[in-house]
Amino acid sequence: MKIALTQFAASDSPEENLNRQISMLNRAAESGAKIVCTQELFMSKYFCVELDARNFSYARSLASKEVGALSEAAGNAGVVLVASLFEDRGGGLYHNTAVVFDADGSELGIYRKAHIPHDPHFEEKYYFAPGDTGYRSWNTKYGKIGVLVCWDQWFPEAARLTALAGADIIFYPTAIGGLLSESPEEAARFKRSWQTVQCGHAVANGVYVAAANRVGVEKVSDGRGGIKFWGGSFLSNPYGEIVAEASENSEEILLADIDFSLLAEFRKTWPFFRDRRTDTYAGMLKLAED
Amino acid sequence: MKIALTQFAASDSPEENLNRQISMLNRAAESGAKIVCTQELFMSKYFCVELDARNFSYARSLASKEVGALSEAAGNAGVVLVASLFEDRGGGLYHNTAVVFDADGSELGIYRKAHIPHDPHFEEKYYFAPGDTGYRSWNTKYGKIGVLVCWDQWFPEAARLTALAGADIIFYPTAIGGLLSESPEEAARFKRSWQTVQCGHAVANGVYVAAANRVGVEKVSDGRGGIKFWGGSFLSNPYGEIVAEASENSEEILLADIDFSLLAEFRKTWPFFRDRRTDTYAGMLKLAED
Repeated sequence: MKIALTQFAASDSPEENLNRQISMLNRAAESGAKIVCTQELFMSKYFCVELDARNFSYARSLASKEVGALSEAAGNAGVVLVASLFEDRGGGLYHNTAVVFDADGSELGIYRKAHIPHDPHFEEKYYFAPGDTGYRSWNTKYGKIGVLVCWDQWFPEAARLTALAGADIIFYPTAIGGLLSESPEEAARFKRSWQTVQCGHAVANGVYVAAANRVGVEKVSDGRGGIKFWGGSFLSNPYGEIVAEASENSEEILLADIDFSLLAEFRKTWPFFRDRRTDTYAGMLKLAED
Repeated sequence: MKIALTQFAASDSPEENLNRQISMLNRAAESGAKIVCTQELFMSKYFCVELDARNFSYARSLASKEVGALSEAAGNAGVVLVASLFEDRGGGLYHNTAVVFDADGSELGIYRKAHIPHDPHFEEKYYFAPGDTGYRSWNTKYGKIGVLVCWDQWFPEAARLTALAGADIIFYPTAIGGLLSESPEEAARFKRSWQTVQCGHAVANGVYVAAANRVGVEKVSDGRGGIKFWGGSFLSNPYGEIVAEASENSEEILLADIDFSLLAEFRKTWPFFRDRRTDTYAGMLKLAED
């Protein structure tokens, strides 16, 4: 079973980005991909680089024509699609949401990003209410998958709960990179940490982990600062080995193979789920010990 | 601040192993180490390779002369000591326990291994009752440390709760290796997974992670099968970078530097603890979703 992670540099036009995404989905399907995952908020630039109320215009409802177009594209290509969306939920409520479409185009469900960052040029708490869907998995035509989004990547709890929900592959639509003020060495170091923590989730849970990240440089309106996205979309197997990795700077459809038999093998060798000490985990529900 | 992780191949004599450990502690202190961590159950061979009631004779009470000797050794050398012990708690209750001594030799407390493996030649559920201490940290003379033991390494919950308890360094006395029936390629793969998951804990929690593992081959009584320990004691910094790593086969005192300022820096760059969604983690207290 082949998956595709798509990465590109978004333009100012949502229509253009949507068309490009659908074109990449079609090419991925022609190359044999059965599940396609988009980068985070692929329909726009990563507007969270700054606070600007006009950016709420990028939000779409789940009933929008764009979501319809994605459903149609998945169904036409016969692929499962994980699509990241700036969701307008109505009533002034917005989320960073991933929609999962089955290979016939039907909408299986959504995941709303639980962990919302708020750091220089990643000012997401301004735009997105924290997700209220919980952690999920869906039994798609081509495998049992879960979805988390970007900042969730750093939280072992999110990966664990998605694996406990039954996911064999956890997809992460992502928009991560370094500040333009950072050195290349710092950026390389942070990028490795980003991979390491996710490979750790793969091992701890005996799952595949697949991250689709964007590429390119995006600046704030006055040109003073911004983000250089890392690209480097990748797939880790349950051993924490990166088995496919995209370039740092180029648009790319990263194709990678999933071997579901490896999951059962891994979990028999390393039966972690048998030994969780749930009676000792009450502290997980607190922010600090005191 | 320098730490030392000691690894060696244990002999059949507890007295000999204890003396060797104390000698390594002294040499580590002479080399400038301020905190020393032993491999798991250093006072004996890894008897859990098989079920044999006679092995309970390796257990010692916390009031034993051996624990007294460790306290004295730590105090004499002026180092903090994390010592792994087969604890005889009395009343037929046994634990896989780590004792933490401050640099004056005083006993700061214990941690009893929470996650107990039971796999071919790692038959620990026969010997050890699951720990009941919870996850802890101690404010030692040379830093705030936490201790987990071996199989705990694979559980993000244990690392998270130890970090939430305040640990800046998590020490893992360890006895891990491959079965003699495994190929060198399999052993290398599993060893990498073992490192990856721990480096992931370092990143997710913004802590140092230090594992002290044993070396050598230990066989079951009839010689049919056993374990080749991986050695490879290592220190990961909060970025998930392995900054010091011991050999695979030799007795070694691995010295490694801790830079506490890196922890504060890391946690300001990556403020994960601000964003944990404790309201969504109730499922962590269950073994499965159903």
